[in-house]
Amino acid sequence: MDKKLLIAALHEILPEALVLHSDEAQRPFECDALSAYRRLPLITVLPDTIEQVQAVVRLCYQLGVPLVARGAGTGLSGGAMPDESGILLSLAKFNRILEIDLDNHCARVEPGVRNLAISETVADQGFYYAPDPSSQIACTIGGNVAENAGGVHCLKYGLTVHNILGLKLITPEGDLIALGGKSYDSPGYDLLALMTGSEGLLGIIVEVTVKLLPQPERKQVILAAYDDVSKAAAAVATIIAAGIIPAGLEMMDKLAIQAAEDYCHPGYPTEAEAILLCEVDGHNEEVSERIMQLRELLKPTQPIAFATADNESQRLQFWAGRKAAFPAIGRLSPDYYCMDGTIPRRHLPKVLKDISAFSDEFGLVVANVFHAGDGNLHPLILYNANKPGELEKAEQLGGKILELCLSVGGTITGEHGVGIEKINQMCSQFTTAELNQFHAIKEALDPAGILNPGKAIPTLHRCAELGAMHIHQGQLPHPELERF
Amino acid sequence: MDKKLLIAALHEILPEALVLHSDEAQRPFECDALSAYRRLPLITVLPDTIEQVQAVVRLCYQLGVPLVARGAGTGLSGGAMPDESGILLSLAKFNRILEIDLDNHCARVEPGVRNLAISETVADQGFYYAPDPSSQIACTIGGNVAENAGGVHCLKYGLTVHNILGLKLITPEGDLIALGGKSYDSPGYDLLALMTGSEGLLGIIVEVTVKLLPQPERKQVILAAYDDVSKAAAAVATIIAAGIIPAGLEMMDKLAIQAAEDYCHPGYPTEAEAILLCEVDGHNEEVSERIMQLRELLKPTQPIAFATADNESQRLQFWAGRKAAFPAIGRLSPDYYCMDGTIPRRHLPKVLKDISAFSDEFGLVVANVFHAGDGNLHPLILYNANKPGELEKAEQLGGKILELCLSVGGTITGEHGVGIEKINQMCSQFTTAELNQFHAIKEALDPAGILNPGKAIPTLHRCAELGAMHIHQGQLPHPELERF
Repeated sequence: MDKKLLIAALHEILPEALVLHSDEAQRPFECDALSAYRRLPLITVLPDTIEQVQAVVRLCYQLGVPLVARGAGTGLSGGAMPDESGILLSLAKFNRILEIDLDNHCARVEPGVRNLAISETVADQGFYYAPDPSSQIACTIGGNVAENAGGVHCLKYGLTVHNILGLKLITPEGDLIALGGKSYDSPGYDLLALMTGSEGLLGIIVEVTVKLLPQPERKQVILAAYDDVSKAAAAVATIIAAGIIPAGLEMMDKLAIQAAEDYCHPGYPTEAEAILLCEVDGHNEEVSERIMQLRELLKPTQPIAFATADNESQRLQFWAGRKAAFPAIGRLSPDYYCMDGTIPRRHLPKVLKDISAFSDEFGLVVANVFHAGDGNLHPLILYNANKPGELEKAEQLGGKILELCLSVGGTITGEHGVGIEKINQMCSQFTTAELNQFHAIKEALDPAGILNPGKAIPTLHRCAELGAMHIHQGQLPHPELERF
Repeated sequence: MDKKLLIAALHEILPEALVLHSDEAQRPFECDALSAYRRLPLITVLPDTIEQVQAVVRLCYQLGVPLVARGAGTGLSGGAMPDESGILLSLAKFNRILEIDLDNHCARVEPGVRNLAISETVADQGFYYAPDPSSQIACTIGGNVAENAGGVHCLKYGLTVHNILGLKLITPEGDLIALGGKSYDSPGYDLLALMTGSEGLLGIIVEVTVKLLPQPERKQVILAAYDDVSKAAAAVATIIAAGIIPAGLEMMDKLAIQAAEDYCHPGYPTEAEAILLCEVDGHNEEVSERIMQLRELLKPTQPIAFATADNESQRLQFWAGRKAAFPAIGRLSPDYYCMDGTIPRRHLPKVLKDISAFSDEFGLVVANVFHAGDGNLHPLILYNANKPGELEKAEQLGGKILELCLSVGGTITGEHGVGIEKINQMCSQFTTAELNQFHAIKEALDPAGILNPGKAIPTLHRCAELGAMHIHQGQLPHPELERF
């Protein structure tokens, strides 16, 4: 597609100020948080009305131009990576909260509204929006829907798909459709869930109706420290098997503990090999009893320290260390690679042991910070991109970890999505019949294939080639992209 | 398709005893619980292995023979109505619980396992399966998934889609695919949710992984009685707006109260125009405080009676009346037609008033028993099928009620599905662009169109014809079916 002609066509449907086409102006959009990979789009547009989005989509549909939607760009798997021959459509201007409807425990918001802004808006009324990805201060709800974002509290409160009621979206043909709404259920196929987590491949989200939950009366967190990672992992199983569903159940290993302690002094026991943070919420009495129950339950797991936050400020301090763990670890190494896989909880001890062995094998340090309660691992692989071959080694190690997750019945992503990062691992997780279903869905809803091409779902051809070439070595090659 | 040839082909892949072809043998399969409509299938099969199901599906695919899957046949919208030129596939023999995995709070079951049997199996371990449709003693989990069943407790605990983790199903091409699993999230499009509630149009379910929840420590129910239906409806809004999420919040009107009282003596105040049953569950103290809070909260709503169940047996007695309401009302009239629509909660007073006006207009008594908390109405229209024209009148009235639900932003079904019953109302709820998406999905996953043809999703042609002919009169015509 000729760039000048496309700019001219866009100027007919958008004010000129909303069409960016110089390298300089487009630089902020060259990557998302998978920043090792960067690429400029042909053109970037910043529409501010639904009609403008429809007009852009129709234009792309007519001309066969690739179209990539983007929220805040905090995604970790490259889902918002631009297409160099296509249009990047930023939804940054869709940042209004349209309606707060507490009678129906919901809010209608535009996709560019920040996750945390929703909870802040209804906090005084005693409500909040449950999913809380670590990036919640910056990430936007449209991206949360596209990636089916989770967070620390999804163990008890579910993922994004469990916390939205309705979507308005633009189909690749440019039609505006409404899925779900304020009512509890809707007939027809569950396109609302189908769109959630579809990584921008099936439609452009222009409005989201989110569920609002009443704030729990009280929250309390315990910290249990162990001299052995396996003991901490066993403690997770003990808690869950007792029928407790904590609001959050997080684990950090020694390296993460020390990095967090150095960074923001949350008061973690730095001699520990692993700590668990277990939050319970609900009624005041219930929380007190649960804490006592946890204390008893965890005694046989031999913690070397057990602490309950004395007050709200200590509770927040305990969490501050966990929430700052990624930047804290970032200080230890020029670069790190954040993995995201899930495993059935009972395999935690074995998987952590194997990750440690891989770390030794590759000579790369791995820190573990993760949602232990729902078996969602986030190993952070430390490397130095300036050392030749280290990024490749980190990616190989990452690939081995994902294969390990699959080998125990897990998945290759818990909440970060597939994007470009894990598209090869999709070949390992799914059979040809299953991939065929994915392709059938894509062809049905985006027959021209204009939305976010090359992401999330690998072609069968790619999988066939990988089968011979790469997958058994656990690599994550992105040969078509320039690395930074 | 020649019946004899098809029988011969089936005998090659199934033991003869599993192939029923006489009218007599097939009579039990001629309808589901929408029993006003009956039709014999060409042939009924009762496979008892996944391989047999695959073989039957492949045969149907090759020959273009319609295939209708059936669980316990308790569905109220005719979703399991046989096709007279096709095969009815009963999953009755798939009735084993395959695995109870309390470490992961889940169970793997075959689709023919009864809903209640799951909870019964894990009750001693302190767990249960949350969705509890009124038919739970008989309905099976496969049908629950196909219809995305709800129940009294879905206000707090969600629909079937929120309570399953994995599915194994047979595609229309005969492939066995696995969707989801024990892990919390899975990459790729959310086919698990797409299949849930798809009414047998996209695949044949052969295994379900259900979530198990820890039983709440205590349950308590209050009964609040009102001299005016509007006051009861306003009380529902008061409870929800206060940020309370009851485990169940049900409403019955005068006729339903009296019928239930006559039938099983739950101790309802028969002078009331409406009662609310509000269940709270959770920690012991929390339940006590909630009950006190509800008592205070409801004072301004002017109940004429307010009772708390004194003990577990009284709690069960309060519920017994609600659960027996349908058969109780069945004693008042030769026939009744159970509707199922949802509305945003705040429109309850207006909608109930309008239903009452419709009832007068049509000269047919309407009893209301419903899930008030999530705005899921179940008006029961009493009629006598032996009086010429009464069924038609009941259906017209039903159609008007569904149009009313739509007019206030609701939906035409909350939990009973579309089936054949509400296929015309789908034309009212959805736009052409939205219906096009449904058709695209169907064509993508069942290109030969063999699975449950003619159900759930209307053709655009049908909608176009109805647009001119029927819909503004709110009718529910099923001209192609013989009525009983």
